[in-house]
Amino acid sequence: MKNLIKRVLEFRDQRDWKQFHTPENLAKSIVIEAGELLENFQWNTEYNENNVHDELADIMNYCILMADALDVDIVDIMYKKIDKNEKKYPVNKAKGNSKKYTEL
Amino acid sequence: MKNLIKRVLEFRDQRDWKQFHTPENLAKSIVIEAGELLENFQWNTEYNENNVHDELADIMNYCILMADALDVDIVDIMYKKIDKNEKKYPVNKAKGNSKKYTEL
Amino acid sequence: MKNLIKRVLEFRDQRDWKQFHTPENLAKSIVIEAGELLENFQWNTEYNENNVHDELADIMNYCILMADALDVDIVDIMYKKIDKNEKKYPVNKAKGNSKKYTEL
Amino acid sequence: MKNLIKRVLEFRDQRDWKQFHTPENLAKSIVIEAGELLENFQWNTEYNENNVHDELADIMNYCILMADALDVDIVDIMYKKIDKNEKKYPVNKAKGNSKKYTEL
Repeated sequence: MKNLIKRVLEFRDQRDWKQFHTPENLAKSIVIEAGELLENFQWNTEYNENNVHDELADIMNYCILMADALDVDIVDIMYKKIDKNEKKYPVNKAKGNSKKYTEL
Repeated sequence: MKNLIKRVLEFRDQRDWKQFHTPENLAKSIVIEAGELLENFQWNTEYNENNVHDELADIMNYCILMADALDVDIVDIMYKKIDKNEKKYPVNKAKGNSKKYTEL
Repeated sequence: MKNLIKRVLEFRDQRDWKQFHTPENLAKSIVIEAGELLENFQWNTEYNENNVHDELADIMNYCILMADALDVDIVDIMYKKIDKNEKKYPVNKAKGNSKKYTEL
Repeated sequence: MKNLIKRVLEFRDQRDWKQFHTPENLAKSIVIEAGELLENFQWNTEYNENNVHDELADIMNYCILMADALDVDIVDIMYKKIDKNEKKYPVNKAKGNSKKYTEL
């Protein structure tokens, strides 16, 4: 992961793009790419594999850039969120159930 | 990263949620969470840090689940995409420029 | 509005597209188009006017199709929602304030 | 439609909200609401009707506000877009077919 993050930031810095990467602009970018990912599933589920992989990678890429812009460790905030989710979705209530925690 | 992915999949499997995690449902989930992230920046840039971290983690979480559902290595598809982006955005054309590659 | 709705549904029926227009598929379509609209504002506010108009029209178009798929009158649900919003955002609390009703 | 638009703008002006309604902020708002609409269809199609109507109305509401912020007639841009779509999706090619015009 460290090498991947380094590569993502290097790519950005070589292009002098940090100036555009405010948290707000990156939040917009993530939702824009997420829409493009969803477009593969708009009318049916016969998606193009390579395109789906590319769009998924684009989203991850912007997530890594956003963590950097926010000055947080992305792995760290993910572990913290999983800990929170453990409490929101206790196994005995959530097992086999797709309901939101507010409705469990 | 391996440990993190393991933890994400474990959380899912303990709840027997794989049945809901089709690529299509995960693509929807990513865009839904991305909208929630963007909500922090809807009217101004005075965002709540913890909330932004949580939403970003949710998106990453679904990305990892999606890579698993697609049976691809998430780090692998990211490196491949960066290689593609190197060609789409050559440093000499893209430096300091936020234009899309189709307009460079 | 009646003529516009008639035109939108006629366009759909001439192409025999109603079969694809489940509420779920239309909800996906709206968010996909909304992402395309937002792309005009991704890095700055120098948007292309015609493109913005087109994307906005695409969203409205899918909204009209969705109301038809849900078998509701779109103007009717809008008036009802404005009435709800009157209660959520009383003038004396909301005036000049962009906060969400939960924080007013 | 004229009465509805008048009502939407009146609601905004009573709250002095025009100052927040830049095209960019409204584009963000539309995609945020579109994500909330899609949340009703995240894991299955057993959606809550009232909630779906409300979210759809929210999107339409922001579309009307956006047309006003852009100083265009929303009905006018919709007719123009349908005319464009007529050319992109000729009946003989598009009938019964959900493919994008670039693939027809």
